[in-house]
Amino acid sequence: MTQNIYDDAGFFKNYSQLPRSTQGLAGAPEWPKLRALLPPLAGMRVLDLGCGFGWFARWARENGAAHVVGVDISDRMLARARRDTEDQAIEYFCADLERYVPAPGVFDLVYSSLAFHYLENLDRLLADVHNALVPGGRLVFSVEHPLMTAPANPGWSTDSAGRSVWPVEGYLDEGLRSTDWLAEGVIKRHRTIGTYLNLLIRVGFSIRNVEEWGPSLEQVVERPDWKVERERPMFLLVDCEAR
Amino acid sequence: MTQNIYDDAGFFKNYSQLPRSTQGLAGAPEWPKLRALLPPLAGMRVLDLGCGFGWFARWARENGAAHVVGVDISDRMLARARRDTEDQAIEYFCADLERYVPAPGVFDLVYSSLAFHYLENLDRLLADVHNALVPGGRLVFSVEHPLMTAPANPGWSTDSAGRSVWPVEGYLDEGLRSTDWLAEGVIKRHRTIGTYLNLLIRVGFSIRNVEEWGPSLEQVVERPDWKVERERPMFLLVDCEAR
Repeated sequence: MTQNIYDDAGFFKNYSQLPRSTQGLAGAPEWPKLRALLPPLAGMRVLDLGCGFGWFARWARENGAAHVVGVDISDRMLARARRDTEDQAIEYFCADLERYVPAPGVFDLVYSSLAFHYLENLDRLLADVHNALVPGGRLVFSVEHPLMTAPANPGWSTDSAGRSVWPVEGYLDEGLRSTDWLAEGVIKRHRTIGTYLNLLIRVGFSIRNVEEWGPSLEQVVERPDWKVERERPMFLLVDCEAR
Repeated sequence: MTQNIYDDAGFFKNYSQLPRSTQGLAGAPEWPKLRALLPPLAGMRVLDLGCGFGWFARWARENGAAHVVGVDISDRMLARARRDTEDQAIEYFCADLERYVPAPGVFDLVYSSLAFHYLENLDRLLADVHNALVPGGRLVFSVEHPLMTAPANPGWSTDSAGRSVWPVEGYLDEGLRSTDWLAEGVIKRHRTIGTYLNLLIRVGFSIRNVEEWGPSLEQVVERPDWKVERERPMFLLVDCEAR
């Protein structure tokens, strides 16, 4: 089963204070790029894997989705999602994505933000997600970029010329990583970009778009402290279609 | 026009001494993985972009290809390719891939090894390559991995724990890089993995397989000095199909 770090009191408190928790989608700098990958939502039946506080579920409904199912492992997050949602067409379920099997053939879009890199059996879930989509249905998701998950101790360093660099090691050795982020011992699973894409292709997805996300030059003008984040991508965003 | 560094006397002399020049495909450690991406060649009409000494062209014919066209910018390399080839079904052409337009609809496979990262107008070439393939035809190619082309001064560093790390910077800033490799001032073009894949998808290719290549654990047993090359991938290998 997945480590349920989001129900850890200390992690939850720290996570709740991130901009993406207090401001929702507008507080997530990668959201404009992720949103641009989405199909028009009008009438769509949507599944959100790792729905957290329900920000995307509510946004999807505001943008025309017919029905949204949000799934998360964290009771604490779902409690707040339910508190903040007044919409009969949004349902929340508490489930471990390592085992969750969505109903077959009933979704037009599966969305997932920053959840898949916690999962060990991602191939199993992706096969069931493919099965849950109608033909031509879409899977749009983000994960931490493999350059973030590869190092045992991720962090910036300074080269001899005084420039910030991101030291990479362990990239080709996939598997478990334990890092300290908002709490000690957060368990993630490192996979290469190739592995993510080949898993998708193998279960029947056709790749439509791959974005290695860092802040745009425009975002850096507004937030000069983000400049360093262009030295290496933070997130991997993928749009694919069920064949 | 592409920098024709392969016709630089110093570069050519150094390049000619690499294992991949003296031993051919067997001297290229990524070859087993690249070969595994290829379709059965029996009866195929094959185009090799950046054919160099013609090792792949001859191998393709030995493995059943009906006809092979090899294209390279370097007269020196083609002179040796012609010297080493006695086969009427292999043709060599000297051309700059920035401008080369293959005949439309006449190839079953386009192959390219470590050439595309020299090109500025790769989108133009990929569109014409797609056009040159029959429907269902394949493009299988390798490039230097973006982690190799991103840094202004690529090279290993040592972290505080004494481990070899590969410092990354400039990853999201695509474009020209001038590095010293076998000769001074070799011009390459840095692109992210996302950009490579999105260019392919946009001109009509369907992605079949993406490999971020480093030596396998088996290869490291035979060549312990290659162990460090697993810290980050050296090459990006892509197999895609013309829709």
